[in-house]
Parts: sequence; structure tokens; C-alpha cells
Amino acid sequence: MRPSRRAFDELRPVSIERNVARYAEGSCLIKFGETHVLCTASLEDKPPSWLRGTGKGWVTAEYAMLPRATHERTRRESSSGKPSGRTQEIQRLVGRSLRAVVDLVRLGEKQITIDCDVLQADGGTRTASITGGFVALQECVKWMMERKMLTVSPIKDHVAAISCGISKGTAVLDLDYAEDSEAMTDANFVMTGSGGLVEIQGTAEGAPFSQEQFLDMLALARKGIGELVELQKQAVA
Amino acid sequence: MRPSRRAFDELRPVSIERNVARYAEGSCLIKFGETHVLCTASLEDKPPSWLRGTGKGWVTAEYAMLPRATHERTRRESSSGKPSGRTQEIQRLVGRSLRAVVDLVRLGEKQITIDCDVLQADGGTRTASITGGFVALQECVKWMMERKMLTVSPIKDHVAAISCGISKGTAVLDLDYAEDSEAMTDANFVMTGSGGLVEIQGTAEGAPFSQEQFLDMLALARKGIGELVELQKQAVA
Amino acid sequence: MRPSRRAFDELRPVSIERNVARYAEGSCLIKFGETHVLCTASLEDKPPSWLRGTGKGWVTAEYAMLPRATHERTRRESSSGKPSGRTQEIQRLVGRSLRAVVDLVRLGEKQITIDCDVLQADGGTRTASITGGFVALQECVKWMMERKMLTVSPIKDHVAAISCGISKGTAVLDLDYAEDSEAMTDANFVMTGSGGLVEIQGTAEGAPFSQEQFLDMLALARKGIGELVELQKQAVA
Amino acid sequence: MRPSRRAFDELRPVSIERNVARYAEGSCLIKFGETHVLCTASLEDKPPSWLRGTGKGWVTAEYAMLPRATHERTRRESSSGKPSGRTQEIQRLVGRSLRAVVDLVRLGEKQITIDCDVLQADGGTRTASITGGFVALQECVKWMMERKMLTVSPIKDHVAAISCGISKGTAVLDLDYAEDSEAMTDANFVMTGSGGLVEIQGTAEGAPFSQEQFLDMLALARKGIGELVELQKQAVA
Amino acid sequence: MRPSRRAFDELRPVSIERNVARYAEGSCLIKFGETHVLCTASLEDKPPSWLRGTGKGWVTAEYAMLPRATHERTRRESSSGKPSGRTQEIQRLVGRSLRAVVDLVRLGEKQITIDCDVLQADGGTRTASITGGFVALQECVKWMMERKMLTVSPIKDHVAAISCGISKGTAVLDLDYAEDSEAMTDANFVMTGSGGLVEIQGTAEGAPFSQEQFLDMLALARKGIGELVELQKQAVA
Amino acid sequence: MRPSRRAFDELRPVSIERNVARYAEGSCLIKFGETHVLCTASLEDKPPSWLRGTGKGWVTAEYAMLPRATHERTRRESSSGKPSGRTQEIQRLVGRSLRAVVDLVRLGEKQITIDCDVLQADGGTRTASITGGFVALQECVKWMMERKMLTVSPIKDHVAAISCGISKGTAVLDLDYAEDSEAMTDANFVMTGSGGLVEIQGTAEGAPFSQEQFLDMLALARKGIGELVELQKQAVA
Repeated sequence: MRPSRRAFDELRPVSIERNVARYAEGSCLIKFGETHVLCTASLEDKPPSWLRGTGKGWVTAEYAMLPRATHERTRRESSSGKPSGRTQEIQRLVGRSLRAVVDLVRLGEKQITIDCDVLQADGGTRTASITGGFVALQECVKWMMERKMLTVSPIKDHVAAISCGISKGTAVLDLDYAEDSEAMTDANFVMTGSGGLVEIQGTAEGAPFSQEQFLDMLALARKGIGELVELQKQAVA
Repeated sequence: MRPSRRAFDELRPVSIERNVARYAEGSCLIKFGETHVLCTASLEDKPPSWLRGTGKGWVTAEYAMLPRATHERTRRESSSGKPSGRTQEIQRLVGRSLRAVVDLVRLGEKQITIDCDVLQADGGTRTASITGGFVALQECVKWMMERKMLTVSPIKDHVAAISCGISKGTAVLDLDYAEDSEAMTDANFVMTGSGGLVEIQGTAEGAPFSQEQFLDMLALARKGIGELVELQKQAVA
Repeated sequence: MRPSRRAFDELRPVSIERNVARYAEGSCLIKFGETHVLCTASLEDKPPSWLRGTGKGWVTAEYAMLPRATHERTRRESSSGKPSGRTQEIQRLVGRSLRAVVDLVRLGEKQITIDCDVLQADGGTRTASITGGFVALQECVKWMMERKMLTVSPIKDHVAAISCGISKGTAVLDLDYAEDSEAMTDANFVMTGSGGLVEIQGTAEGAPFSQEQFLDMLALARKGIGELVELQKQAVA
Repeated sequence: MRPSRRAFDELRPVSIERNVARYAEGSCLIKFGETHVLCTASLEDKPPSWLRGTGKGWVTAEYAMLPRATHERTRRESSSGKPSGRTQEIQRLVGRSLRAVVDLVRLGEKQITIDCDVLQADGGTRTASITGGFVALQECVKWMMERKMLTVSPIKDHVAAISCGISKGTAVLDLDYAEDSEAMTDANFVMTGSGGLVEIQGTAEGAPFSQEQFLDMLALARKGIGELVELQKQAVA
Repeated sequence: MRPSRRAFDELRPVSIERNVARYAEGSCLIKFGETHVLCTASLEDKPPSWLRGTGKGWVTAEYAMLPRATHERTRRESSSGKPSGRTQEIQRLVGRSLRAVVDLVRLGEKQITIDCDVLQADGGTRTASITGGFVALQECVKWMMERKMLTVSPIKDHVAAISCGISKGTAVLDLDYAEDSEAMTDANFVMTGSGGLVEIQGTAEGAPFSQEQFLDMLALARKGIGELVELQKQAVA
Repeated sequence: MRPSRRAFDELRPVSIERNVARYAEGSCLIKFGETHVLCTASLEDKPPSWLRGTGKGWVTAEYAMLPRATHERTRRESSSGKPSGRTQEIQRLVGRSLRAVVDLVRLGEKQITIDCDVLQADGGTRTASITGGFVALQECVKWMMERKMLTVSPIKDHVAAISCGISKGTAVLDLDYAEDSEAMTDANFVMTGSGGLVEIQGTAEGAPFSQEQFLDMLALARKGIGELVELQKQAVA
């Protein structure tokens, strides 16, 4: 039995609410159980300097946690003078994942920044950020199309993410904080709506894991991401 | 007529929702119209180092805006390496205002940090932070009393804040962003529930202001803060 | 009796010596008793980047204390990596106060930086900085007019500043360090030569203050600033 | 045909030279073709502060590139004020990978820091760092055992790493810079001597990759890491 | 003829005024012509951490220029986040020079910090800082002896410094800014009252210099430093 | 007898190996005994911004030590956020020394950066950096001439450097770490191939030194630098 009484292949209750930030070109509040992430999309009229004149645009992401999103208060990164290694790792991952489904030439010389701010954290903040970040991005593209800034959407597919782990020897889907703290192995998967793999990150926290265990997690992730993509579709419908 | 069609002495619709952050010892989401601030209180078992051994505790505040709380996206302060002068000014103000109604000896050698994170900004974020920060602080004290960490509350009075301005020559209450951008004078007032003055900050943005104008603003602030204190009382009732 | 044996409405001895920095376009050494501030004006041929092409100029201020201006040596802000919150608050205040009496369009696309370096600190460094900073600014404008860089002065009025406090229940003028440390309330006032209010900052250090006390301080400030403006006029005569 | 004329499952020539840093407790210079990394182990007599009193030790890693290790000179991270996100990601990976094969309780309250300094970079610097870092760590443990600081080695297994990619549709082993720049998918694998998985990081650079492609890369990695472990054993023999 | 019409072996007018900083344990304002440096000595009751328990004290120095000490305004080092390389070089030099004449064991576990703040700069600020810093140090020791904190002075000898240069082929003493900008070679000499060499720094700015030229400068420096030591003695008499 | 059993005027074994960095335009590994410095030259097509349009180029240097180049591991300067004062002093010295033998007009609007990375440190790292840095620079110029980017070499002379010290009362040449730690005086000399003086830095670590001792060191340095220039010539032959 998992601490949350979920089945081994069961997601936490997931909800996606669009249109939560009055000024952003796209936004959503995504909840994976008690993990709540506010995702906003901000459009800029020009790409980063290294893309100027290439005809290509850019999608990037930033990630942060409110200081009291967590059980213990965390120090603000503005006080410590720079984003931590963990923060940088996550925002690079979110950016790469979203770019994997965007045609940057079709986007044209613009930049969309997806901000993922964790209001409450109970494990899985990076996977919720990717899944919700995609919805904010899609909303932003819709906003652009309504204003005739784009005629064809540069979004090629859905993208979503989920974590898996090996807990007491078996693979389980969508770890919450309690499970994550005890899991021997922790893996994050990012996939497209059509099932392509975008990113795999598996880490042995204690003992190494076997190829079989890894394949079990991969199968669970495929199931969970399928469900998340379905929820993304319902959210924007 | 004000841009928001409010009377000159009318607050925006204000709401205060408690208990919005699962892990914090106290929290509320306060809304002054389209300005939304999430306030959390975090309790630490020891005071800052310079108070150790004195028997006194401390209340401090931090303030930040989400990057897309505003019309245009603002750069994260963790990227620019330090909190801006404006941020530091505001968090010093919020901390001072809250300490004005707390008996630090009665609190004992502990520290309460009030985090004020602006989810959406339409003017008046510092006054909403003080008003909501007080509620989060009060919730935290209630949490401590329920756990017998305190027997007598160290909170001596309510504290709340509001801005006023001189707009087209007359004093008006509770500026929103549109009004704030055009006002010739901008003033913030912090007062206690019993009407004592805690902080006054008045600034001429263009032409200097007269003593009479200043007294008009002070009278409006007194009325508005009275209403805010009433709302604080209802929120925790 | 005040610690300095001054009457409640008596300034410390104030002196303003112009022309103390050989290379600056304007300068003065201002003394409020044992508080000594060296103020210099530096002219740049272009405004900050966000004003280019607007026809407007800018006046800004920087503030610092020598490490041993104070009773105890203070760490240099270059070692701690950034100006403190207090420093930023003061330099923003000085800049705003000076701009309140300058017609930036008449100044044209230039920038004047007023550096206020505290050689010795005995309370009231920010009010001395504003009062002396105005003289340095005026000297700089004179320098520009002598060189035909300006035909009409962009300075619209005098500006000066003074602190007041509530000490042992009564309002007193121009706090020195000893008084400031004990005062229950501390307020800074910035006014123009013609008596307009530019900035009011009042803070309860312990108990809140009453409206009546505040009005007493305001009246004292008006008297003191009148005297300071007189001294400014004599200094440049 | 690969640009380097290697077979799809062929490593670059790998060499490991021990004892290259006179003062370090362990060291080696590892070469994966034209990628050269100097790995040193530094022993400290106490663990990081958060482990004091727990009886456990720590193994950590730092990573850097000499400015002209690369085709174009890279700016030093000491000038830009902080390690980049990429650097932090790599040093966290190297540290985690080495800790996966160390019994930290057996190590006791000490810290070993593995510095991986890239003298020349032609792709695969992080995998060379892990593979060489393990040898430096092993040398350090040998040094400690010779001095009776340890009686039983805390090293439980070998650990080594290799990259794979999908190049022109097929999986290839051990990408050099030229191949890495063009590969559609890039994956890094860390495994133990007994074949356990320690870390998997697969990233789609352009199009998503399929599960089949991923399994091809995993099989190649297993072969390559087997060969690397063999070379580690020869190096210390 | 030198630009300042001085003879090749002639110092600028030098003055040393003690007791210029009310709160410091020792202070002087030293002028080498238009170069003005305010030197203060601050006593701390304990040495830096790495000397605790050794019975030895420390003398250190910090150096800074006011932004408008120079012809063009210089950016504050607190804004740029750190002291420049030049600043660090100078403060290390001043500290080393002063320590060369102090018996640190006799000083005991204390620290004296000499702050050298350049109010106006016309070349030779580092040599003025050393020469004036010595006087501030001596005043501080006198202050300590008057309070019976020391019974025997830890100061073993005088120390002073001067610059020389090769200007139009000949050696000249005590370069001002105009000369320094054009000199082919610039050298700084630090010597004790009894003529011992403490520090020599000679730099070819354009063409290399010859041994003979160097010896000419050394002879001039010896003469100039002799005069400065005489002035130090008069200042404290 | 010196700790290394060398004669008082004897260099450590010196070797210079060119062409050690595959991607750099010039490089060498220089060894002064157990001090090993990797020097690379990186050519950029444009000079620093302050030289644009002047027709002149620039030669600059950067210096760093690998963390475990030393007996005890040193913290990376990227972690501490900035190069230390010592690092900045050394890289300014290396840059100045190299520029002393380069005709910057003949170089034209380009920049050559010499990186000196200390792989192993046993005293004398700055003198080895200058001596090896010159060889890397020369290689870079050769590379440019082979590509017809220059027709006449901008290098006017050789430049090399050595340290001397007063050890047990006598002058000795080329201090290693053991000698350096005990020497009463430490001096670094930079000279050209034709014997011109470029830089002299002499520092009394304990007692002041006499003019005679200084001249002894200067004579030793002249001998040592003559030998180093000979080795530079052999290296590139």
C-alpha cells in the first residue's frame, strides 16, 4: 500500500485551471494533488540576442518556489544571490521539454518565457511545471493567433511529464514528497502526445536499479503521461 | 470620476481568505481589487543571532513579486543577484509595521517571518502586504497558542495600511495602478486598530503638495484603515 | 533639557562651504553639528539610456558613509558586495527630493549625479545630504550657465530637509545621534523654499504616535527648513 | 560511417594515467580520445557541517573547463561570478555517481572532493570525469588504507560512464564533439562494475526518440562501460 | 622643466593634520599637493580569526576613492559588486608596509584597521596613504598607551612612501597625475625611518628602463622619504 | 645549503613544451621544477571595446590555479564569486609584462588572451607564467603569420621573469615553495631579452632589506633571466 493509498499506477488528482493571471498572455494553475504550480507565459517581441536575424524564435522557462511552499521555509534565491543548481537544472529541463514540441521557425523572431512558480510543493514540481507550462504556452499561442500574430500554430504536439520511482522494490507512478523521500530510485519522464520520448532522467538514490525496473517505470510513465495529455486537452477545450 | 468609478473615499473590494498554504503556521490570500498577495507566516524556534540570550523574539518580512504579476514581465531578483532597492524598502516597511503591534518580549526567543508574495499587482501591493501580513501573523500566534507555545498573545493591536493620493487636485483613497501612475502625490499610511500612527510616507511625484492636501489624505487613510481592520476581524472570526 | 542643551526648536550649528572638490562641477561640505557630508555634483553629457531621445535630463544621487564616520567602524559596502537596503533607501530619497525642484526638460539630455559622502556621522545624514546636495546641484548649474550650456536655470525652487522626533513626549527639531537612539518616533521632512511638501517619512520606533504629535513635528520642520534655506542662500551669495 | 571512422559500438582510444598530481591524495589523467580530464582527490578530515556527528562521510565533485579547452575560448566562471547551470548540473551528476558506489558510513566522518578539470574538450567530458574520478577516488582510498586511516575499503563497486546518441537514425557509442553537435538525441549512462544502473539521462535535441532507439543506446552503453571498467582495473593494477 | 615647475628632486607641498575624525582611535588628513587622503585607525579588541590564540595582533588597511576624487567621476565599487584589482593591490600594499614596522606580538591579540579614503586624487594616492596611514596608526597606539592598553609601543620605526618616474629620460621625484600619465616608468618605494627597504615596485609603462635609471629613482626616493619621515615627526610633536 | 641543494645562483630544472593544447592558437607547458603552468594563447578578431577604431590591439592575461595544484586544496574562485586580490595582481602583472615587448599598433585591432593555468604549484608560479606566457604568445604570432594575418611580427624582444630572495642573509635565485615560506625578502624581476627592466617587485616579509641585498638579487635575476631567454629560444627553434 502506498502512503497515499493510491494504486501503483495511479496519478494523484490532477486539475488544470486556465486564465488565472490577468496580465499574462497565457496562464494556468496546475495541481498534482498538493503540488500547486502557477504557470504563466510572457510574450516578447524579439528573440534572445543570439537569434536575431535568424528568423527563429525561442521558448524558455524559469522556475522558483515560494519560500513557504515547503514543509520548512526555504531561503529566497534573491537573498542568496543566485538560483541554486537544482533550480537551474529544473528550468533548463522545462525549457528543453517545451521546445521539443515547438517549431521555432514558425514561431518567428519572438520569445515566450514560461514562468513556473510553485505555490505549494508536495513532490513532482518539475513534472507539474512541464505539464502546466505546456498549457500556458498553448494559451499564449492562441492569444497570438487571435491577434493574427501567427496564422499557423508552431506547436507540433502535446508534451507532458511524470515521475516514477522504485518504492519497496516495485515501480510506482507519480511520487509525492513522502514517497520520494524514501524511494530508492527516482525517474522523470517527458513524452509527447504521440508517445515520443523527449527526456529521461533516472537516478539511483541508494542501490543501483536494474534494467527491468527501469522498463517498468517507463511503462508506468507512458500510461500516466497519456492521462495527463488527455487532461491538457480537456482543460483547453 | 475615478478611472475605477469608485468614490474618492472608497476602497476597492477587499477579501481576505485564511488557511491557503498547507505547510505554513499561518497564511492568507488578500485581495485589494486586482492586487493579490499571498502572505505566509513561518515560525522558527530561535531569534536572529543578535537577539540570542536577550529573551526577545523578532518578526521580519520578505516581499517579492512573481515575474508576471505585472503588465510587463519583470526580471526575477534571483537572476539579477540581489533584491532591488524598492523590494528592500518594502520589506523593511512591512517588518517595522508588524513589529509595532507585537510585544517581542512576550513572543520570547523565536522568529516569525512573514512572506508576502504578490501573485498579481494592480497598485497598493505594500499596503495589502501589511494588512494581509498581519492576518498571517495572527494565525501563526493562534497556532502557537493552540500548541501551548504561548499562553498570552504578544499581539497588542491590529495594524493595517492603505495608500492615498492627490489625483486631479483632490485626495483619493486606495490608488490602483492606473491612478497611481498619474497621481501627483502618493502617500502610504500605516495605523493601528486604535488609530495610532505607525508609519507615514508621502512623496511628491511632480509638484510639491500642501499641508491641507496632506491632511485630507490622512483623514481618508484613517477611514480606510478602519474598514480594513474590520475586515481583518471578520476574516479570523 | 535635550542632551545637546538645545531648545526643542533649535537646529544644530549648520555650516555650508562651497568649492571643496577641485574636479567636480559643483561641491560643498555641509555640517549639521558633528555630522559632516561632502556633496559633489558630476555632470555627464548624456542622460541614462531610458531617457535618450526624450529631450529630458536626469538628476540622481548616491550616498555612502566612510567606514569610520561612525562610533564603531562599519564594513565597506564594496566588501559586502552591494549597497545595503538603508543606503539604497537614502539615495533614492535624495534623488527624488532634488528632482522635485528641477525642470528636467529645461536641463535637457544630461545627467547630474550628486554624491553624498558622509565623512562624520552624528545623526541626520540624509537630511544634511539633501540640504547640501541642493547646493552642489546649484553650483553645477551655475558652472553650466557660465559655460553657456544652459541659458535658463532648470532649478525651480530651493529644497532642504530636516528630521524631527518625539523625545520624552515632546516634539524636537534636528535629532543628533544620541537623541535619535532614544526617540520614540523619528520623522524626516523635505520641503521647498516656498514651503511645499516634497517628502514626509514618519516612523514609530516604539509606541505609535498621535496625529497631534505629528502636526507638532511638521510645524517644527517648517521652521527648521526655513532656516536651512536661508543658509543655502547665504552660502552661494 | 562515423566522422571519426569508428564502428557504431566503438569507444575512442581511452587511457588512464595515475599519480599525475604530486600533492593530491589520489589523481589520474584520463583521455577519451582528444578529451583530457585531470582528476584529483582531496581528503579532508571532517565531513560537511550537516553530517557532523552522524558517523557518515561524504564524497563530492567539482568540475571546470580551462578557458581554452574548447575550440573557442570560454570565459572563466570566476569572472562571471558563479558556476554556470551546466557546470552545476555536471558536478552534481559526478558527485551522485561516485557516492553510489561508496559506503559513507564505512568512510567515516571525512570528506573526499574529486576535482575534474578539463584540460581539453572534444565531447564526453562528464562521462570521462566520472570514469576518471572513480580512479582518483580509489587512489585516495588506497592512500588512506596505507596510512591505516581505513581498514576496510568503503568502495563497493566500480562506476563508469559513457554517452550514446542517435546519429543519422542509428545508435552510436561515445560521441565526440563533432558527432554530439549533430546528434538528434544524446544520452549519458552511468553504471556500476556489476551492471547496475546508477544514472540515465536521455535528451531529444531535435525530434523525440523512440523506446527502441533508447534500448539500442542502453545496450551500447552497457558494452562500453564494461570496457571502461576493465581499463580502470588495468590502470590501478 | 616639470609641469608643476618643481625641481626633479622636489616633493609637492606636504601637510599632515592629525585628529580630524572625531570617533576614530587615530586619524590624519594628509595632502601631497592636490592629493588629499583621510586616514583613520580603528581598533578592534580581537585579531582576525586565524590569529586567535597565537598572542599576535594584526594591522590591515582598506583603500577607496570617493567617486568624484578624480577628473572624471568613477563608479562606486559597492555598485560594481567588488573592489577592483587596483584597489585590492593598493590595500594589500598599504597593509604590508605598515606591518613591516609593527611588532605584532607586542601589539597582542588586537586588530588595527587603517582606512585610507581619497578625497581628492592628483597622483600618488598609494604613497600618501602609506605615509598618512602610519601617522593614524601611531595616533592609535598613543591612544592605547594613554588608556594603559599597551605599556611599550609596538611601533619599531617610521615608514613612508614616495613615487618616482622617468620623465623625458630623467628620474623625477613624487609624480603628480599629469606627470604620471606621461612617464615611461613609474616606481613606488616604501622605506623605514632608518632607511631600510620595505617595498619596491617599478613598472615600465612603455620602453623598459635601465639599471642606472632605476638606481637614480632609488636615490631620489631615499631623499624624499627622509623628508616625509621628518614631516611625520613634526606632525605628531 | 639550500633546501633543494641548488647553488645560490642556480635555477630549478626548466622545461618548455610547445603545442600542448589542440585548439589554442599558441600554447606551452612550462615547468620550473615542480611548478607546472599550462599557457595558452587565444586570438580574438577584435580588440577590447575601448580600443576599437584606434588601430591598436591588446594582449591580456588570466591566471588561475587548479584547486589541488597546492599542498592543501584551495577553493575555486568561481565558488567564491570573484578572483582574489592575489589572482588579480598576478594577471595584471603577466599582462603588463607581455605588452612591454609587443608593438600593439603592429598587432592591429585584435586581442590575444594568454591563459596561465597552474597545474601544480611549488613557488614561482607568476614568473613561470610570464616566461611560458611569452612562448604561447610567440606561437600565436607565428600562427598568425603563417595565415598571413600579420606580415611583420609585433614582438619586439623576449621577456622572462624570475624570483629571488634573501634566505639566511644571502641572495638566492628562483625560490621554491619551501624557500619562499622562510625567506625574509621576496622579489620578482621581469626583464627583456636585451636586459631592459620591465618590472621589479621587492617585498620585505620580515625585516627591511638593504640596498646592497637588493642589488645582489638584481644581479642574480639578470643571470637567471638570461638562461630562461636561452631556453625560450631553444623551445621554439
